[in-house]
Amino acid sequence: MKILILGADGYLGWPTAMHLANKGHSVLAVDNYARRTMALETSSEALFAAPNLLERAKIFKESTGEEIDVRIGDCAEMDFIGEIVRDFQPECVVHYAEQPSAPYSMRGPREARFTLENNLGTTFSLIWAMIQHAPNCHMVKLGTMGEYGTPNIDIEEGWIDINHNGRSDKFLFPRQAGSLYHTTKVLDTDLLWFYVRTYGLAVTDLMQGPVYGISTAESDLDDRLMPHFHYDDIFGTVVNRFVTQAVSGVPLTVYGKGGQTRGYLNLNDTLQCVELATNSPAEKGELRVLNQFTEQFSVNQLAEKVSEVGNRLGLNVEINSVENPRKELEDHYYNAKHSGLLDLGLEPNLLTDDIMAGIITKVQQYQSSIDKSKILPRVKWS
Amino acid sequence: MKILILGADGYLGWPTAMHLANKGHSVLAVDNYARRTMALETSSEALFAAPNLLERAKIFKESTGEEIDVRIGDCAEMDFIGEIVRDFQPECVVHYAEQPSAPYSMRGPREARFTLENNLGTTFSLIWAMIQHAPNCHMVKLGTMGEYGTPNIDIEEGWIDINHNGRSDKFLFPRQAGSLYHTTKVLDTDLLWFYVRTYGLAVTDLMQGPVYGISTAESDLDDRLMPHFHYDDIFGTVVNRFVTQAVSGVPLTVYGKGGQTRGYLNLNDTLQCVELATNSPAEKGELRVLNQFTEQFSVNQLAEKVSEVGNRLGLNVEINSVENPRKELEDHYYNAKHSGLLDLGLEPNLLTDDIMAGIITKVQQYQSSIDKSKILPRVKWS
Repeated sequence: MKILILGADGYLGWPTAMHLANKGHSVLAVDNYARRTMALETSSEALFAAPNLLERAKIFKESTGEEIDVRIGDCAEMDFIGEIVRDFQPECVVHYAEQPSAPYSMRGPREARFTLENNLGTTFSLIWAMIQHAPNCHMVKLGTMGEYGTPNIDIEEGWIDINHNGRSDKFLFPRQAGSLYHTTKVLDTDLLWFYVRTYGLAVTDLMQGPVYGISTAESDLDDRLMPHFHYDDIFGTVVNRFVTQAVSGVPLTVYGKGGQTRGYLNLNDTLQCVELATNSPAEKGELRVLNQFTEQFSVNQLAEKVSEVGNRLGLNVEINSVENPRKELEDHYYNAKHSGLLDLGLEPNLLTDDIMAGIITKVQQYQSSIDKSKILPRVKWS
Repeated sequence: MKILILGADGYLGWPTAMHLANKGHSVLAVDNYARRTMALETSSEALFAAPNLLERAKIFKESTGEEIDVRIGDCAEMDFIGEIVRDFQPECVVHYAEQPSAPYSMRGPREARFTLENNLGTTFSLIWAMIQHAPNCHMVKLGTMGEYGTPNIDIEEGWIDINHNGRSDKFLFPRQAGSLYHTTKVLDTDLLWFYVRTYGLAVTDLMQGPVYGISTAESDLDDRLMPHFHYDDIFGTVVNRFVTQAVSGVPLTVYGKGGQTRGYLNLNDTLQCVELATNSPAEKGELRVLNQFTEQFSVNQLAEKVSEVGNRLGLNVEINSVENPRKELEDHYYNAKHSGLLDLGLEPNLLTDDIMAGIITKVQQYQSSIDKSKILPRVKWS
């Protein structure tokens, strides 16, 4: 299958490109390095420097014999993405090309505006590239479980039937997110649903929880193929941050009470989920929404897990509650459905002690690169 | 009260500026003439040419002795609107500054992108101008009843309690709109609700139905003070269009079956509603949503009303069903609540035969200016 991957330089984009190329798909990988620029700008560089996309594609070819084609440019520009879709004629587009950091989006008006314009602009430009040049192409869009926020009712997969005054109808499940970044994903969903039902596009929206991990079958071939691993407060996800804190002797930074509960998944399960969605496309005129995570944890539970496994490996892990820089509920109901991807065949890699030990051990190899000044929260929600 | 009006050159913006100035408020009126430009671009000029904002403010002062200050510029530019809010220190901002045409937004990707960037950009820039320079200012935002679409359940005023699997929570009422223009208003709402709850802004969202009418107490002082009256397929609202069609002997253009039902209101009731909202501001941290219309009609009912009154005035009015250029339900349930503004004191001017006759008579004065080539639908939803 011809698969276009937007945001292919990212933590998830690059492993996805390798995984799908290794499965025999014809992959075109696109990025504008925006996240590298933002990381530089905020002193939030990853644990190790990754070669650029062209270099990584070359290393990947040397390791596997498989090709990944690369184009560098801004997917929010309609002409750029329009030409790519017209010329490549993808059967599937995997759309990761968004500013992915909640704290970055909350730094100030400039960063907020960039997030709004980049994320909406990319989704909008891709929609029109498909309408004009590839109306039968299937879009696999990365949403986020964060779009739902933390409602006091069970979270369904994207849609809900509402009964009201004796009548009923089906609607998008209510969304109210905790950062501007997450809110731009809500806007993406509204925009996609409008164009799906009006122009008959086929879209799968993967509502993903926070991802953890550093290793995939392909990245294990050569350390230069590893994904960007962020442990800073701006681009790092919580498990990866806690592991790095444990390795470097910094007390784990639990924000506030630590009761914040979310659905998490292993990097390798992201690859599985995207592949499953790609192989079973949505219908034309369908916005299929799948909740993409495998297990729910509170922040306290994650801290405990990192602490237990870290201590068993000889680290001396402390847990510390720090003032919560975010506006969020720290103690709340959370019960999110996630059967859709299991029904498609997902076989979860759960966060076992072995998996956790593997991440810790890998990060220990880069222990000397850890910059502790990047760990404490630098962006407040106000 | 110091009131800033954004989009003050518009069909509603200008009458609002005059009305509030006449009530003794200190009014600063801002516009960038974008709608005039779009009207020129699409051959959709209004029934009569209105003087520019500065000229109209001068005529208004000559007629009433009241001042309306004017600034010309683009409210989507953060620096421009930021300086205005900082220097004027409004107690209330009335935000009309959006591309208001559904058909324009559906003309093609260029117009769609302009609508998205202009509407979201203006709302975003205003939000940040308030956060940075006037955090206690009350925003009165013009939303649209079209955000709700035509659900199969009763439409509440902005919010709904959802009971699900034995638990309950309160959410924004589901929104799914019928054009990209209406969808940008949905995105506005999501954006506003995020910033309201995170930064404690005070916002009233007026979910307005289609407005009709040509005359207000202030515009009656001098015809050069009349609002832009559009009767074309792109900027004209349905009652104003039907009246102009009746006057010019064109059969009334009912789209499809004509069962499309919406809530309508008189231009003078828009002025009342905005004034009522301004005088009773939302609380800080509150997104107050009020459904702004006075009566529900189907398109067929409106055509019948125009026909009856027109024929009584000696016109020979025909009604014609034309192919519906839009994607919308032509026969559907519609029952929308609208008690909030009545509770604040709204005294509706209903669409009586006298009111209808008044609009017809006024349009007849400009009969020779009607360009019939602007009447039939020129933009299709596909």
